[in-house]
Amino acid sequence: MSRIDGRTPEQLRPVTIERGWSKHAEGSVLVSFGDTRVLCTASVTEGVPRWRKGSGEGWVTAEYSMLPRSTNTRGDRESVRGKIGGRTHEISRLIGRSLRAVIDPKALGENTVVLDCDVLQADGGTRTAAITGAYVALADAVAWAQGKKIVKAGRKPLTDTVAAVSVGIVDGTPLLDLCYEEDVRAETDMNVVCTGDGRFVEVQGTAEGAPFDRAELGALLDLATAGCVDLAALQTEALARTLNA
Amino acid sequence: MSRIDGRTPEQLRPVTIERGWSKHAEGSVLVSFGDTRVLCTASVTEGVPRWRKGSGEGWVTAEYSMLPRSTNTRGDRESVRGKIGGRTHEISRLIGRSLRAVIDPKALGENTVVLDCDVLQADGGTRTAAITGAYVALADAVAWAQGKKIVKAGRKPLTDTVAAVSVGIVDGTPLLDLCYEEDVRAETDMNVVCTGDGRFVEVQGTAEGAPFDRAELGALLDLATAGCVDLAALQTEALARTLNA
Amino acid sequence: MSRIDGRTPEQLRPVTIERGWSKHAEGSVLVSFGDTRVLCTASVTEGVPRWRKGSGEGWVTAEYSMLPRSTNTRGDRESVRGKIGGRTHEISRLIGRSLRAVIDPKALGENTVVLDCDVLQADGGTRTAAITGAYVALADAVAWAQGKKIVKAGRKPLTDTVAAVSVGIVDGTPLLDLCYEEDVRAETDMNVVCTGDGRFVEVQGTAEGAPFDRAELGALLDLATAGCVDLAALQTEALARTLNA
Amino acid sequence: MSRIDGRTPEQLRPVTIERGWSKHAEGSVLVSFGDTRVLCTASVTEGVPRWRKGSGEGWVTAEYSMLPRSTNTRGDRESVRGKIGGRTHEISRLIGRSLRAVIDPKALGENTVVLDCDVLQADGGTRTAAITGAYVALADAVAWAQGKKIVKAGRKPLTDTVAAVSVGIVDGTPLLDLCYEEDVRAETDMNVVCTGDGRFVEVQGTAEGAPFDRAELGALLDLATAGCVDLAALQTEALARTLNA
Amino acid sequence: MSRIDGRTPEQLRPVTIERGWSKHAEGSVLVSFGDTRVLCTASVTEGVPRWRKGSGEGWVTAEYSMLPRSTNTRGDRESVRGKIGGRTHEISRLIGRSLRAVIDPKALGENTVVLDCDVLQADGGTRTAAITGAYVALADAVAWAQGKKIVKAGRKPLTDTVAAVSVGIVDGTPLLDLCYEEDVRAETDMNVVCTGDGRFVEVQGTAEGAPFDRAELGALLDLATAGCVDLAALQTEALARTLNA
Amino acid sequence: MSRIDGRTPEQLRPVTIERGWSKHAEGSVLVSFGDTRVLCTASVTEGVPRWRKGSGEGWVTAEYSMLPRSTNTRGDRESVRGKIGGRTHEISRLIGRSLRAVIDPKALGENTVVLDCDVLQADGGTRTAAITGAYVALADAVAWAQGKKIVKAGRKPLTDTVAAVSVGIVDGTPLLDLCYEEDVRAETDMNVVCTGDGRFVEVQGTAEGAPFDRAELGALLDLATAGCVDLAALQTEALARTLNA
Repeated sequence: MSRIDGRTPEQLRPVTIERGWSKHAEGSVLVSFGDTRVLCTASVTEGVPRWRKGSGEGWVTAEYSMLPRSTNTRGDRESVRGKIGGRTHEISRLIGRSLRAVIDPKALGENTVVLDCDVLQADGGTRTAAITGAYVALADAVAWAQGKKIVKAGRKPLTDTVAAVSVGIVDGTPLLDLCYEEDVRAETDMNVVCTGDGRFVEVQGTAEGAPFDRAELGALLDLATAGCVDLAALQTEALARTLNA
Repeated sequence: MSRIDGRTPEQLRPVTIERGWSKHAEGSVLVSFGDTRVLCTASVTEGVPRWRKGSGEGWVTAEYSMLPRSTNTRGDRESVRGKIGGRTHEISRLIGRSLRAVIDPKALGENTVVLDCDVLQADGGTRTAAITGAYVALADAVAWAQGKKIVKAGRKPLTDTVAAVSVGIVDGTPLLDLCYEEDVRAETDMNVVCTGDGRFVEVQGTAEGAPFDRAELGALLDLATAGCVDLAALQTEALARTLNA
Repeated sequence: MSRIDGRTPEQLRPVTIERGWSKHAEGSVLVSFGDTRVLCTASVTEGVPRWRKGSGEGWVTAEYSMLPRSTNTRGDRESVRGKIGGRTHEISRLIGRSLRAVIDPKALGENTVVLDCDVLQADGGTRTAAITGAYVALADAVAWAQGKKIVKAGRKPLTDTVAAVSVGIVDGTPLLDLCYEEDVRAETDMNVVCTGDGRFVEVQGTAEGAPFDRAELGALLDLATAGCVDLAALQTEALARTLNA
Repeated sequence: MSRIDGRTPEQLRPVTIERGWSKHAEGSVLVSFGDTRVLCTASVTEGVPRWRKGSGEGWVTAEYSMLPRSTNTRGDRESVRGKIGGRTHEISRLIGRSLRAVIDPKALGENTVVLDCDVLQADGGTRTAAITGAYVALADAVAWAQGKKIVKAGRKPLTDTVAAVSVGIVDGTPLLDLCYEEDVRAETDMNVVCTGDGRFVEVQGTAEGAPFDRAELGALLDLATAGCVDLAALQTEALARTLNA
Repeated sequence: MSRIDGRTPEQLRPVTIERGWSKHAEGSVLVSFGDTRVLCTASVTEGVPRWRKGSGEGWVTAEYSMLPRSTNTRGDRESVRGKIGGRTHEISRLIGRSLRAVIDPKALGENTVVLDCDVLQADGGTRTAAITGAYVALADAVAWAQGKKIVKAGRKPLTDTVAAVSVGIVDGTPLLDLCYEEDVRAETDMNVVCTGDGRFVEVQGTAEGAPFDRAELGALLDLATAGCVDLAALQTEALARTLNA
Repeated sequence: MSRIDGRTPEQLRPVTIERGWSKHAEGSVLVSFGDTRVLCTASVTEGVPRWRKGSGEGWVTAEYSMLPRSTNTRGDRESVRGKIGGRTHEISRLIGRSLRAVIDPKALGENTVVLDCDVLQADGGTRTAAITGAYVALADAVAWAQGKKIVKAGRKPLTDTVAAVSVGIVDGTPLLDLCYEEDVRAETDMNVVCTGDGRFVEVQGTAEGAPFDRAELGALLDLATAGCVDLAALQTEALARTLNA
């Protein structure tokens, strides 16, 4: 079976990771998974939120948002509506937790990194692209903080890489990295976040239509694990390139 | 190994399901998983939200909330803060999706059921208790609507039962139905929602400390699946009792 | 004349006061006036709001809320609407003022007690049940604080008991403790808050239909004063029972 | 005993009622009780809120607000804070109920009158001045609506006059119409709203210090009733003057 | 050509500046430009906002608002809507900037003056009347602060006067100080803020219909500059009168 | 004198206008003025806001926003704060007015175009870049609507081009198109919006330090007018390129 865009079931969309996209942020990445494009910026500030003061530990958090016309139909701005929707909250929290899974807060010291993930164009998989791109922005921000001695010499705040991908069952077939059109038709939809060593940070599977059984779950996890290995390689490759400040 | 409260790893806490708790709601349940107590009420209204009008299909949704002093330390009221937090949003959405997985919207017809799940006392597993109790309240509300001919004769809006349980790895051991003290210490935390036939509606696993591997994930799913079978039996038993209106 | 539920005009509904309902709160009471059920929890924290710091005086405040389906028709959640309605504000303020009338803030010292009064089921008189129950929760919380030496030895923060009841004129007859159905039909509606010595803390009378004259006002105050004496006896009785922590 | 401003206990402050203050509103009054000055405007619109449509009945409502520097210390603007405080809500509701007590909604027909009561300068008794002034603005608005045939010929929407005054016990003496300095020192504080025939629409008494007994309550009601008779005369006198549109 | 109200194109409406309108504020002015009436109060507090602490410099800011029925049709209260509209924000900022243009923050010292400009009745030009009146209230507040030694002896926080006027092109003719009816019909609308020495603090011109050219802009600036000279004279005259505290 | 980045006083920064940046929007432009980058998308919907229905006229409006880390220091998200700031409101309104100046609403018919201008990177002049880019996005959206026959055949909704530029006086010298560093140091700051025929739509000049005189105003207008001519040429050039849908 061939997919809408000609991919095989286990194939990622073309992924690009463009570092140094913003001149202001300590780390910034424009990541694309096919037509999905997310701008991820990492902002470093010295100090931590009040509830963490004196702990000697740092904090990493994230805020996700979609531009009103990143989607096919224009959505209302959450700033205009005066409140953040449940989906936005949910994804912001997921990104934050995913990144904290590869951060040693003691090594970071009492510093905060905020990752802003703004979806410029959406075509499915915006949260997984955001996590994958935000990791690279975070790595650049950590390197910057090490260069500025904000992170103490010899300390390694990053313990591994982290990447994410969506998988789903469409017309009975498990597929990797769903585009929007596939996502809409999926019976089951799963987002998987893996560290570079292939273990899981988050597994979030949802039956959109019929419930799914253990075998289907297994097939989806196989696909996602392999996809995350590919994404980790692309992250490493991107970070190996020279960054023009 | 014995747990804090003397349970074996694969044992649920004492679960009670008290139907007909409220005189006003079309369905109402006070559910307890150990010291966790959630009041679930189901409110039936004829008609559906605007975006669903004319579809011939019904709508089921949920709102979750914690009383300020349901927890060990008093939390601010979300009504006073003027906004709903991300966790509340996330859980409300989860409950709604879980219940919709066992609803045939065509059979429900253009009617709406709102499930309010208010945590009166929290000791871990509030969202899984809420789903488990809300299902029973929903079943009573559907029966009420059938009795009132709001749901047409011969139609069966409920396609199966649905229940949920938390599992987690504490000190390296997979445990079923974590109480708060276990939850805090868990390295991995997972909420699993199953239909009565043992299939999955939602699987949400999160590494709180170290990432988890495929084998650990398997052990947690085994525990959760068995736990949901037990909960389904308790739901069925509760629904078999006579309800004094 | 006999009332809807067979009571005489000067008769209270069955009142129950169940202490120790919550395992977390320093004081907690499930109070019922007939079918009206309110969960009252008292939370003690050391320290006072900023504007009271350094005064040597404590602070007691209250927050009232109704669960969405505590009433016959489901109401919107105030947290979802993003703001608190006027009625909620008004009642929260009334409860706070009523309790402060029997608190010696100097004796309490710089400690704060917050009373949360959540209506689980409403059938008229929710504010008066809340005051009556909250007093008992407050008494337990004060006793707890004395046991923990948070309140200094020998100090008595409570100066008296306080209770409240509604009265109204229905079809020309003054009635005590209106249930919802009576409340809707009342021409005049009054809430009266009394201390244990029979004096008034609050008198709030409202003509719902025709204005009322001085004689009617007198008849209502007679009924209410007697009702509060009965409630004070029930409070004392409840507090005399042993509390299983 | 002589009062701060030389009045006897049963004496009102100088009261002025200036009609036609605004060129836009259908009724407008600048009312002053001593240094308390409130601008009351009545806005008539055809039609009623959704929940009242088709009833054949009109609606009268009120909004109360204080200018930030109407008081001795500047208060935050509620529009800037983004929410209305409990006191504002409470008073707006009180004014609305008071005016509706003298309105025959059938005679008003499906028309709405909104009374805006904005405190330009505060010196105690702002809510009672607002009610007293708003009645006059309402009477002018009703006359305007009759002139425009918005209210049908021969119908009399106003059934009586309504006025309000505060009373309180200061240093053991019951006083009429408290200024701010007296209000702060009052042990008991009461707001009384009366119709022109001397009956009560609202009685709201609060013990600020010690609770009050039945005799004290009686003395306060005597004072307030007499004060409202005087205010009703002033309202009638003001309405008898020719209004330059 | 004669204008609606008989003025010549270069003529201001009757302007009145009534000082000492409020007994509480450190400076207060009721200013009228024809039927436009704005109450301007100046509130002095010692200390400055957090971001300015330790600078040795003071802060002057403004808040503008319209009473709901200051206009021909009643507008919603921004406090009830829960947010401030763009126009209100824009004008508040304009007033603040205009006043800061004539303040020497070093001479003011670490003190804050808040100017509240509340429109009691609107007939065009509310923002320009507000600036013109607020300057006078500010001058009184500064004098008060000098009298109280809050501003150090010998320091002169005010460096000049400031006034504002609207101009516009109506039916091809440039007009000074538009009333509402003219404003609605204007093709181009401009607000000009000038210091006493005739220089510009703000120039805000907007084409409502066709764009305007350089010559038209010049004609409008000529009118406005002359109008501001007249307003400065009226301000000076008002400030020369004795103020009864 | 040479500027920070080597430009002459009357020279624009390098300007790029990249059309078709988004696959979803009916018109989309990534515009850059030096390091300032704004994504402008135009969304066309049939129908108009309620207050315009039945008029036969269309509506064009705009929303401006800055990404949190578009600036040197991360700003709070307005959606998280729950309200839109005054500056954002002000600029959104300015962009909307500027575009409506070149729209014939009758020719547009009852259709709405929303321009979203999101600042991805800020270095001064974000509002002027937004207007300049939004015009091009609007032109593409109008062409799309003509192609889809949403705009009737033969109708020309665009009456001219519109562009904007900032000017200011820095160290006594009038400069065109200020970058952030210049903007901060400017004594006077002006934003000028011109149509293609060289007339003014908006002139907004503000004295940041000393007030400015007529001669300085003239010099700034000369610079701005010339700058807008250059920008209009760049817009025309961009629109002449073939757009790959």
